[in-house]
Amino acid sequence: MNEITSKSNGLIKELKKLQQKKYRDQSQRYVIEGFHLVEEAVHTNQDLEHIFVNSRGLHEWQNWLHSQQLDYTFVSDAIFDTLTDAVTPQGILAVLHMKEIVVDLTQGKWLCLDQVQDPGNVGTMIRTADAAGFSGVILGKGTVDLFHPKVLRSMQGSHFHLPVIQQDLMEVCAQFEQANIPVYGTELNEQAVDYRQVVPTTHVALILGNEGQGVRLELLQRTTKNLYIPLFGKAESLNVGVAAGVLMYHFLEK
Amino acid sequence: MNEITSKSNGLIKELKKLQQKKYRDQSQRYVIEGFHLVEEAVHTNQDLEHIFVNSRGLHEWQNWLHSQQLDYTFVSDAIFDTLTDAVTPQGILAVLHMKEIVVDLTQGKWLCLDQVQDPGNVGTMIRTADAAGFSGVILGKGTVDLFHPKVLRSMQGSHFHLPVIQQDLMEVCAQFEQANIPVYGTELNEQAVDYRQVVPTTHVALILGNEGQGVRLELLQRTTKNLYIPLFGKAESLNVGVAAGVLMYHFLEK
Repeated sequence: MNEITSKSNGLIKELKKLQQKKYRDQSQRYVIEGFHLVEEAVHTNQDLEHIFVNSRGLHEWQNWLHSQQLDYTFVSDAIFDTLTDAVTPQGILAVLHMKEIVVDLTQGKWLCLDQVQDPGNVGTMIRTADAAGFSGVILGKGTVDLFHPKVLRSMQGSHFHLPVIQQDLMEVCAQFEQANIPVYGTELNEQAVDYRQVVPTTHVALILGNEGQGVRLELLQRTTKNLYIPLFGKAESLNVGVAAGVLMYHFLEK
Repeated sequence: MNEITSKSNGLIKELKKLQQKKYRDQSQRYVIEGFHLVEEAVHTNQDLEHIFVNSRGLHEWQNWLHSQQLDYTFVSDAIFDTLTDAVTPQGILAVLHMKEIVVDLTQGKWLCLDQVQDPGNVGTMIRTADAAGFSGVILGKGTVDLFHPKVLRSMQGSHFHLPVIQQDLMEVCAQFEQANIPVYGTELNEQAVDYRQVVPTTHVALILGNEGQGVRLELLQRTTKNLYIPLFGKAESLNVGVAAGVLMYHFLEK
């Protein structure tokens, strides 16, 4: 166990900056908070740089840290709190290096997110893609950063399980097209195809869009077909995370 | 247009208390915030007691308020903020009387929530039940209050569209049983029935449970069958709102 006692410690000051996307991108590192995520990072052999605990975390996870032969640093609550935005932190967090991810877009089931802005929605959709056994998730431009603390929280470690990449969706569409993989956009438009009429296929790409505006037009014009989920009541729309779940599970059904 | 200029105005002090469930229950009133909800309340003929606007709201919605012949009260931002927990309020809110709701549990499609604690999840599920054309939603004991500001926000007015009642789920199960309506619990248990094996029926009740613990055992023992949604990847579970969406839309499919 190491200990850092000063807020002005160089490492602490550096890591504090990781709450901003700019610095995460620069240093290719990010912070995960809470025992569940740290445990999952260890189990899935992520590239851990540091583990920090405060007094609560030391008390609760010291035995586990020793059993895993993990090195860690003890800091005061005040220092710990500068490293996390969690309202009630569990007292354990880790700094991870981002992994280089290579994906094969010529096969599989892919979820694409166009300008989805709510981090909770993005995290939930990645978690659902994981649950549904999808091959991976592609975050298009304008979609909230994968390493946003709230995305990490609602994702519950799913980015350790399946590849999540950030790439331009127009380019990705072209690649799917070349590989003969059907690409389905989603629309709040009864003129689009009722998703229940589409027979599930082994290889597929689904595009879900921004909470307010949906998938942008230039993308909708590039897809194989555009789908809608019929609304039978008086709600004006579905939550995008729910819509993604209904569609992904539909594409698994026999 | 009326105007209230003092925070110690008796009405303001009284309405401020509506942020607490106890006072909402006592006075059978609650507060909705934002133009979309107020508009939906007017369109669906809710029992509106008061509409409040601050300077921003006055500027933006005055014409609409006049066009609808609605009486409203202007208050300062400081007073307005005491009536809402919204971080960036839109400047319009309304106080509504709760409606007495009578439901017929001998037919239809019902969503039952057992001890679901996250208000965002509860609101999203009610919204999805509305979208899926369900007959109504039953909130069991331990489920967060329907009139919690965050439930109201994520529900987006769906409680104006379909009945949402608070009732003991054991009693409700007995009523469904008597009406020969199949009741399906949900479990994170591969021994339960894969939901895809259940043929949709016109009348059905689905029970979704607490985010951590799921549906409680005594309820699971009372159901017709218990269902699970298979997990194909490495995620440990689905978000309860997503699970509810997948199941409700399944029960609509032909």
